[in-house]
Amino acid sequence: MRTFKERAETAKSAVMAQLFNLMSEKKTNLCVSADVTTTKELLELADKVGPYICVLKTHIDIVDDFEYTRTVEPLVALAEKHRFLLFEDRKFADIGSTVKAQFTAGIYRIAQWANITNAHTVPGPGVVSGLRSGNQKSGLLLLAEMSTAGALTTPDYAQKTLEIARQNADFVVGFIAQHAMGTPDEDWVIMTPGVGLDDKGDGLGQQYRTVSEVMASGSDIIIVGRGISGKGRDPVVEAQRYREAGWNAYKDRVDGKDY
Amino acid sequence: MRTFKERAETAKSAVMAQLFNLMSEKKTNLCVSADVTTTKELLELADKVGPYICVLKTHIDIVDDFEYTRTVEPLVALAEKHRFLLFEDRKFADIGSTVKAQFTAGIYRIAQWANITNAHTVPGPGVVSGLRSGNQKSGLLLLAEMSTAGALTTPDYAQKTLEIARQNADFVVGFIAQHAMGTPDEDWVIMTPGVGLDDKGDGLGQQYRTVSEVMASGSDIIIVGRGISGKGRDPVVEAQRYREAGWNAYKDRVDGKDY
Repeated sequence: MRTFKERAETAKSAVMAQLFNLMSEKKTNLCVSADVTTTKELLELADKVGPYICVLKTHIDIVDDFEYTRTVEPLVALAEKHRFLLFEDRKFADIGSTVKAQFTAGIYRIAQWANITNAHTVPGPGVVSGLRSGNQKSGLLLLAEMSTAGALTTPDYAQKTLEIARQNADFVVGFIAQHAMGTPDEDWVIMTPGVGLDDKGDGLGQQYRTVSEVMASGSDIIIVGRGISGKGRDPVVEAQRYREAGWNAYKDRVDGKDY
Repeated sequence: MRTFKERAETAKSAVMAQLFNLMSEKKTNLCVSADVTTTKELLELADKVGPYICVLKTHIDIVDDFEYTRTVEPLVALAEKHRFLLFEDRKFADIGSTVKAQFTAGIYRIAQWANITNAHTVPGPGVVSGLRSGNQKSGLLLLAEMSTAGALTTPDYAQKTLEIARQNADFVVGFIAQHAMGTPDEDWVIMTPGVGLDDKGDGLGQQYRTVSEVMASGSDIIIVGRGISGKGRDPVVEAQRYREAGWNAYKDRVDGKDY
């Protein structure tokens, strides 16, 4: 298996190269999911876990006191300070003309600040065309598999999602998935949610797998939410713990290499 | 086929009864899609087409100058004045805990004002549980089929979506679909987008069918966007035209009854 540093050199897009390079240099494949509902919590979490992560995943539309200048601008400054990418987990899932507007317009103006966003492929390839026409600089992840009970992402659904990605390989950087996607000579970033070292589920359909399980399945980046910022947890302690677990699992895969 | 008035009497939820009653009384099965990016345009469109519609469909997250008090409150007042329901076309598509937060929290607080919202079933039944735990008063539409080219909503996908709806029949009022869903003794509201009397497509994957085509397929409510508010069109003239086409197609189905 190639290292993140090696993959950076042949990356299909600037954002993919940037991601692999900072993962290699910071020695982290941890993405923290910021499931918080105030600007203060969001910025505090970003500042605390920033040194240990490659990506901060946001749900900007659950922040009750959102203001572009008070929420996004300081967040972008923290991303630059600690060198991580911002991934707005918007799960775009509409027709092309609508997702273009949702991506670029409205009060969130996601296309202006998110290095990465994602989309469901259920509307067909038009969802990718629509986002691409909004902003080609961001990287797009397609949802190929979901970690929830009873998800309708069948193997055929995942295969069709892969085909849409292949048709848009300069814009689609990879997948939200539970397993590797495509053939070994293709290079997709696989980001995997539903990772927890201590929990099994949340009662609303979420199911957790361990860090070693998902990395052995072909994941590149582990997404951890409540395992790091859940009630009673110290985000710094937990981010260090998940970062170490993720990086050790990665090193096992690349014959002990550390870059 | 039963009339809207007859279906109101046996509706499974308060919002479904309210919808069928106002459709019967206003003699309209037209939903206008407000694909506009300013509060002024949104309120003007709602006031102009209000008398002719049963539902106004919004994408609140494309409104550039959104403020709850300046955007939502006047919109709710217009919905009361003209007696139509508000349908936020959010296409929720995440895990239960996330959609609950997206529905109730953030600056949009959709659960407070939307009579109807919708969700993709790709995450599995947890997406419905999550929304239901956020607000049981709204009605939910599930996306069973999409009108876009290459949509991944296969017959099996639509069938699984129907099963999720059946398990949640007090909360799910119906479907976004191109055809009737379920058996004749079930009563689901079928709302159908991609309806246009003059256009065939938009170059970003959207495909249009005529009013008579979709009504003959089992649709109850036609959703019209650019056909009414597109460039160079008079929304009042077009809303009257689509309302008449939709109501005539409905009357054909219920043996000429007018309620």
